[in-house]
Amino acid sequence: VIPTLPAAIDTPALVVDLEIVEANIERMQRELASRGVALRPHTKTHKIVRLARMQLDAGAAGITVGTLGEAEVMVSGGIRDVFVAYPVIAIGPKAGRLRDLHDRAELIVGVDSAEGARALSAAVAGASGQLRVAVEIDSGQARTGVAPADAPDIARVARDAGLEVAGVFTHGGHAYAAPERVASAAADEVASLAEAAAALRAAGFETPMVSAGSTPTALLSATGAVTEHRPGTYVFGDRQQVALGAIRPQAVALHVAATVVSAHEGRFVIDAGAKTLTKDIAPYLPGYGAIPAWPNAMIERLSDYHGVVTLPHGEPGPQVGDVIAVVPNHVCPVVNEFDTLLIVREGRPVDRWPVDARGRNG
Amino acid sequence: VIPTLPAAIDTPALVVDLEIVEANIERMQRELASRGVALRPHTKTHKIVRLARMQLDAGAAGITVGTLGEAEVMVSGGIRDVFVAYPVIAIGPKAGRLRDLHDRAELIVGVDSAEGARALSAAVAGASGQLRVAVEIDSGQARTGVAPADAPDIARVARDAGLEVAGVFTHGGHAYAAPERVASAAADEVASLAEAAAALRAAGFETPMVSAGSTPTALLSATGAVTEHRPGTYVFGDRQQVALGAIRPQAVALHVAATVVSAHEGRFVIDAGAKTLTKDIAPYLPGYGAIPAWPNAMIERLSDYHGVVTLPHGEPGPQVGDVIAVVPNHVCPVVNEFDTLLIVREGRPVDRWPVDARGRNG
Repeated sequence: VIPTLPAAIDTPALVVDLEIVEANIERMQRELASRGVALRPHTKTHKIVRLARMQLDAGAAGITVGTLGEAEVMVSGGIRDVFVAYPVIAIGPKAGRLRDLHDRAELIVGVDSAEGARALSAAVAGASGQLRVAVEIDSGQARTGVAPADAPDIARVARDAGLEVAGVFTHGGHAYAAPERVASAAADEVASLAEAAAALRAAGFETPMVSAGSTPTALLSATGAVTEHRPGTYVFGDRQQVALGAIRPQAVALHVAATVVSAHEGRFVIDAGAKTLTKDIAPYLPGYGAIPAWPNAMIERLSDYHGVVTLPHGEPGPQVGDVIAVVPNHVCPVVNEFDTLLIVREGRPVDRWPVDARGRNG
Repeated sequence: VIPTLPAAIDTPALVVDLEIVEANIERMQRELASRGVALRPHTKTHKIVRLARMQLDAGAAGITVGTLGEAEVMVSGGIRDVFVAYPVIAIGPKAGRLRDLHDRAELIVGVDSAEGARALSAAVAGASGQLRVAVEIDSGQARTGVAPADAPDIARVARDAGLEVAGVFTHGGHAYAAPERVASAAADEVASLAEAAAALRAAGFETPMVSAGSTPTALLSATGAVTEHRPGTYVFGDRQQVALGAIRPQAVALHVAATVVSAHEGRFVIDAGAKTLTKDIAPYLPGYGAIPAWPNAMIERLSDYHGVVTLPHGEPGPQVGDVIAVVPNHVCPVVNEFDTLLIVREGRPVDRWPVDARGRNG
């Protein structure tokens, strides 16, 4: 699928096909609804209030964010139901920020330690409503989260500190290790959440929220005890999601437009480097992105402002001045590099949207 | 060297010790002056007008930038002598931007192709002064630039198109491949530039500008025919520069302040992830950054907002809520992730400086 880029574009730029975005939003909503699972999209992918509203208008039950900064932007944009799926440690300046958000929105915050629970409690001391928390479960990624059997320990500390325990959540991020790991990571999400929810119920907690989350696992782990899912990347898609089988190549809605600035025997150089494409790689993907119009090309090296692309011996490359489309490996950090997205319909620019929470990474 | 971080800091944050920055600026200026070589620092590292002014006040002959966006910010900040060390293709919106910069400043622009030279010429058609260009030479990195013997071909196209050929430049970026490559990359810079300059003189061109550039090679290739050097990273330093032997550990002026948000057997998690530290790695450096206070720790994996740090078996780690300092592998893309730097003296905050050209990557 070779996208049509607008003429006279200033590069590097992010070009988003709005029709594909709309289809991606509609499809994920329909798929999860058909499974009886709520969709709470992770908005760290796009960081744009307007896109979050499109997701809510399509039927999302609320949104997910990864940082207080993202929550502040979304709440200021009028969105009220916000889950901060991160073990926020509400100390120092973050205590006041958390308290402000709690006063302004229907907040749910992740917790995976007694220290985290106590800091959240102290931050909202004296507030009118109880702060809701969700206990993070490690379903196999070995990042944050506790073992399912330990969920009641954290929940008790939270309850004793005056917090409302809303349920449990996990992120089966080990799905990203390889295409053949996706199905087992999804199964891990379901099993770990079921075990944690059962342990909480046995300990006297209600668990209305049993939340799984990732784009590759979204259609696989929206089952069993799971009540909601938090995919994010599906809205734009990227090379990694295609490789993992999570989306079709036609569902990639965002491309990096880059200009060929230099051409030599066997290689050419584009003006999308590490400050655009980022150095995100995956063991099952060669190079730093795909170039649909030059499928045999490999983006082999990145400097800050240079992408060095190699070609098989003898294959002619593009000319200096040509503008080409790149599918980034991982779209989330790429969007965070840009202040605006160029919105197109049928290859024609129709708008420019600010990336509202760009840089709000804490 | 374990830096002192300010109390009650909101993380992730970039903390810059101004005394170390001042010493780094003074030292590089003195070292190059003692070799009779002009310093034209690459400001893509800091993207801050105020820091560029400090470098000029210390004796720099002008500044280097990597993009028209950086040039626009620096020129708007009152800086006039700007070298865009990049093969700018001045087509589409970039033609008008290049022309505006040429009208407002003493610009020099890189060129490595006939197409690039002709586009620059067309962009400044009718302007009062001639645009100066420098021919980029490939000294071994195999990125942009032409072979030294081909410099006259590009220079002739540029001259025939009405541009003034100021000289030649190169970036011995292959120095970054390994510590043992630095000396030979520096020698490559000197030899390639000397050959190119001689070829240009033989073809009837003056070459007042013979410009080498990188922090690891700065003190090694400021010799022979080289008239100026363009190091950038020396101003802040980073883990890579220490490993390459370019700076001492004490010269690292910038640290990422991060909070421990989760702790488990054998690992802990900090709130500096891929949108903060970036996924820049080097084959001779384990992990995504160094933690001076925990020298045996490895930042093994990054998600957008998580840095997963592993510890040797049995070694106790920091506590949830602890704030730790991280030395990033490569500081340039990290600075580009932040809107501001927290400026400290003796561990105390004294100011907050905007990263003026943050995101101006094209």
